[in-house]
Amino acid sequence: MINKLIAKIRKSNAPIVVGLDPMMKFIPEHIRQAAFAEYGETLEGAAEAVWQFNRGIVDAVCDLVPAVKPQIAMYEQFGIPGLMAFRKTVAYCKEKDLVVIGDVKRGDIGSTSEAYAVAHLGRVQVGSQLCSGFDEDFATVNPYLGSDGIKPFLNVCREEKKGIFVLVKTSNPSSGEIQDRLVRPEESESPEAGDRPLYEIMGQYVKAWGEQCMPEEGDYSYVGAVVGATYPEQGRMLRKMMPRTFILVPGYGAQGGKGADLVHFFNEDGLGAIINSSRGIIAAYQQEEYARFGGSGYADAARAAVLAMREDIASALEGRG
Amino acid sequence: MINKLIAKIRKSNAPIVVGLDPMMKFIPEHIRQAAFAEYGETLEGAAEAVWQFNRGIVDAVCDLVPAVKPQIAMYEQFGIPGLMAFRKTVAYCKEKDLVVIGDVKRGDIGSTSEAYAVAHLGRVQVGSQLCSGFDEDFATVNPYLGSDGIKPFLNVCREEKKGIFVLVKTSNPSSGEIQDRLVRPEESESPEAGDRPLYEIMGQYVKAWGEQCMPEEGDYSYVGAVVGATYPEQGRMLRKMMPRTFILVPGYGAQGGKGADLVHFFNEDGLGAIINSSRGIIAAYQQEEYARFGGSGYADAARAAVLAMREDIASALEGRG
Repeated sequence: MINKLIAKIRKSNAPIVVGLDPMMKFIPEHIRQAAFAEYGETLEGAAEAVWQFNRGIVDAVCDLVPAVKPQIAMYEQFGIPGLMAFRKTVAYCKEKDLVVIGDVKRGDIGSTSEAYAVAHLGRVQVGSQLCSGFDEDFATVNPYLGSDGIKPFLNVCREEKKGIFVLVKTSNPSSGEIQDRLVRPEESESPEAGDRPLYEIMGQYVKAWGEQCMPEEGDYSYVGAVVGATYPEQGRMLRKMMPRTFILVPGYGAQGGKGADLVHFFNEDGLGAIINSSRGIIAAYQQEEYARFGGSGYADAARAAVLAMREDIASALEGRG
Repeated sequence: MINKLIAKIRKSNAPIVVGLDPMMKFIPEHIRQAAFAEYGETLEGAAEAVWQFNRGIVDAVCDLVPAVKPQIAMYEQFGIPGLMAFRKTVAYCKEKDLVVIGDVKRGDIGSTSEAYAVAHLGRVQVGSQLCSGFDEDFATVNPYLGSDGIKPFLNVCREEKKGIFVLVKTSNPSSGEIQDRLVRPEESESPEAGDRPLYEIMGQYVKAWGEQCMPEEGDYSYVGAVVGATYPEQGRMLRKMMPRTFILVPGYGAQGGKGADLVHFFNEDGLGAIINSSRGIIAAYQQEEYARFGGSGYADAARAAVLAMREDIASALEGRG
């Protein structure tokens, strides 16, 4: 799947993933009203609005981008109907040949992590049958519990030819509270290694897991990392440290990351990173720049925002020479 | 809700939470066969088996224990039908007046964490209505992303009078890879503080969040911590450090934690901790000790295992005395 992602990035010339985080306030009035008219102001109504909204976005951008990243929390808040809209969105995007990164940030231990891996990337045994739960192509994973929590994901990825992105340095302002804390070298390490921030330790783990998870051909592992666009210096360092790790970069646009910040996340081959934008694309029509599209043109606004983002990244990458 | 949990622990004299982690292999043949006969070897069939299994356990133990902890991964692996069984289980346990701790280990940033908090503990706005997604009483939360990820949970807890348990030191063998790493004091701290393991830093955060989240009356915050029974020394230290933090303790039984290890997790008042056992109770009939119950007596076996666990904890607590 990592190779499919890379091939699609090359073909589209757009290392962009569209974050499908359909908050109610992003959904134009006419879609909400139609859904509520059919299902009432219920979880079903909300889920229908989410699904119709997503379908419009996906139809408008699927020829431009390689991948989408639905954020499951935005669906989970609408309970079972919301998760049905998540599942439907995943399936629809796959029908459109988009790579689907489930932003689920799951992580637990042993058999519990295995259950999450199976839920999102694999198939579960039911009697003599194998059944799929949500069936994304990639999932994001939280590593706070250590290797016990990651290995079940690696096993499922190996079997199903899928992949994960492990949280290393997240884009939010308080990510440093834990992730930037300076950590002493372990006894087994050279003391010259010196103190290093926790995200660097995590980067080393991701690198090591990734080395066990290389596809038969290709330069990049199917174990990737999440590193926020809002931390370009850390991105530069992690990029060098983990040359064969694909980096999923959130934080572009609404969270403050700019095109020029992004160059550090790419390798010399122009690959190695995929940049996420969520509200900057799906709610573009609410920004001054794209206000002319209005609510009824929200999907066209999203398309225009993708084109602008593609241009921004391309010129930043050219600019670095 | 923390006060309700404490009152129920006092009344039952059982600081025990039953982990409802219904793996297929724990479910007796007769329940699986009946479910598959009705729904086929499908996700629906698996979910029906899970639900029937849970109902039997809950009926058998609800007068003995204050709380249950369904592990959502074990339901999520069965997709939408699995999550419907999760929701049904939560609702049924609440009907039986059990406190429900959703073991969901969610955690993200800002509006995304808010969506998770709303999904599991709160109500979501849909037009003019407020709707509930899964509606547990407590949720477990992963803190790797820092305060940005926790605060939305605190807000929802405050509004809904619910609570969270934040992962501090997990019970699994590799939890030390990240959580035990020695961290340097920050510039703002006294240098005499010295290096401390990351779980201690996390304990400090939990303590600080907890101080902002005290119920109007009572000694314990509604922001608790997860500390594994398999690490009694760390439990002792964290217990002292966070006197008003309730500790959810997994790892008893199957993972190797014993009654004697547990005393360190309790305060002098005999409170402050609640011990989880999952397979040790729900799959008791598969252990030699309870094999006489057989698959058809799985619920009675679970009841017997709860009684034995209550006794084990009570005598350990008396023994320290």
